[in-house]
Amino acid sequence: MTRVACAQLAPRIGELAENRARTLAAIRAARLRDADVLVLPELASSGYVFADEAEARSVAVPAGGPLLADWARAAGKLTVVAGFCELGDDGALYNSAAVLDGHGVRAVYRKTHLWDRERLVFTPGDLPPPVVRTKVGPVGVLICYDLEFPELTRSLALRGAELIVAPVNWPVVPRPQGERPPEVVQAMAAARTNRVFVAICDRTGTERGQRWTAGTSIIDESGWVVAESTEDTLVVADLDLSRARDKAISERNDVLADRRPELYG
Amino acid sequence: MTRVACAQLAPRIGELAENRARTLAAIRAARLRDADVLVLPELASSGYVFADEAEARSVAVPAGGPLLADWARAAGKLTVVAGFCELGDDGALYNSAAVLDGHGVRAVYRKTHLWDRERLVFTPGDLPPPVVRTKVGPVGVLICYDLEFPELTRSLALRGAELIVAPVNWPVVPRPQGERPPEVVQAMAAARTNRVFVAICDRTGTERGQRWTAGTSIIDESGWVVAESTEDTLVVADLDLSRARDKAISERNDVLADRRPELYG
Repeated sequence: MTRVACAQLAPRIGELAENRARTLAAIRAARLRDADVLVLPELASSGYVFADEAEARSVAVPAGGPLLADWARAAGKLTVVAGFCELGDDGALYNSAAVLDGHGVRAVYRKTHLWDRERLVFTPGDLPPPVVRTKVGPVGVLICYDLEFPELTRSLALRGAELIVAPVNWPVVPRPQGERPPEVVQAMAAARTNRVFVAICDRTGTERGQRWTAGTSIIDESGWVVAESTEDTLVVADLDLSRARDKAISERNDVLADRRPELYG
Repeated sequence: MTRVACAQLAPRIGELAENRARTLAAIRAARLRDADVLVLPELASSGYVFADEAEARSVAVPAGGPLLADWARAAGKLTVVAGFCELGDDGALYNSAAVLDGHGVRAVYRKTHLWDRERLVFTPGDLPPPVVRTKVGPVGVLICYDLEFPELTRSLALRGAELIVAPVNWPVVPRPQGERPPEVVQAMAAARTNRVFVAICDRTGTERGQRWTAGTSIIDESGWVVAESTEDTLVVADLDLSRARDKAISERNDVLADRRPELYG
């Protein structure tokens, strides 16, 4: 079994030192719980609701800088996926997620589908999301709004991802009483459609008037939520990721082999 | 507003005359309720759990035959989408859906993604699902398992469908207490992902030991179920289909324009 944890917490806008302390504490907490994989929220290094590009730039960090090195050192045997505000070598700002462990930074993904005002601050990534060969198996990485593109979750499954992890910051959107956040419904569908596990780490709190959904959810390969919370807490689930290798859903059906791409054009 | 109805009923395996009577009664009931669109279940003409190909062949009907003519005559101004066991001109059997109104048969779609033992009976269709220009606007047609391919729902939205209708026969699958059928979760996600309305007509009853989900659901363009029932009944909703033309979900986001197909390969 693979123990997957999501540290739902509240980054503080612009407070680099404070966010560093909170994320390092979450890594330590996940290690104490013997987690194999820890997901942190989108932009966990910096907060989300920037006034403008200049403010984001003032707190952006390079992938090769000390913050990611600190995260990697703290991770040890744990695989950590954390959102951060990246200052690229090219001088552009990216809404990125790093995959790290004690050996260092394994991959950096730059969000390819930017949400609303992010477009005023960040440059969209121009590479597909990675499938990282971690100790627990192949892990695909998406960030927030990316998850709402079934083409992208499908492509990760076709490339062998058994677990899709997604740092997110979900602004609250209206929903009928008793319903889950709509983004969770989409993630449940993505899990079942592809028979992959999905672990989403959202954030809590309110930032400059923006309320967050706090919709952290871990979803199994049949599309059911197996762990969730709206609190500031570590959400944990033990998953048999090998089940994601079996794409059969009946004696004669396989969710990937049954595709007919010639009809989808 | 467009009034969409789904006639959840129980076809009887092999009983052509009885199924003709039940489906014609459903068409009359929908007209009495002033529906604009009526969806009937998959294989409404014939029932589903065939012992073998020979039994299916014994109740298959051509698209140009009297049953569809009777449905069309009964439909009048109503647009009817009904599943039937089709005997093709080529002698093959298809799991098909007809779109009809008082002017006759507007389109026939042959299911392209066959479920389990259907593969022993039916030939899969080799044409993409149609988007039919009906009086109420462009309507895309899928059948049952087709709905679980987000590539297909996406392609219908890209081709302008405002409403996706799906005759289905959903076998009961396990689900946690309090959850919707997983196929409904996938349909809710398809609706929100594409900002299209979705109307699914399932069946009731048990057939040769097969229990059915009876998951008839009408879903709005934000992905919320607005009408549903597990009973033998007409499920009805009034929908403003024009809302499906607006793909914006924030000041700067549009669910179709935001796609980046170059990254999905």
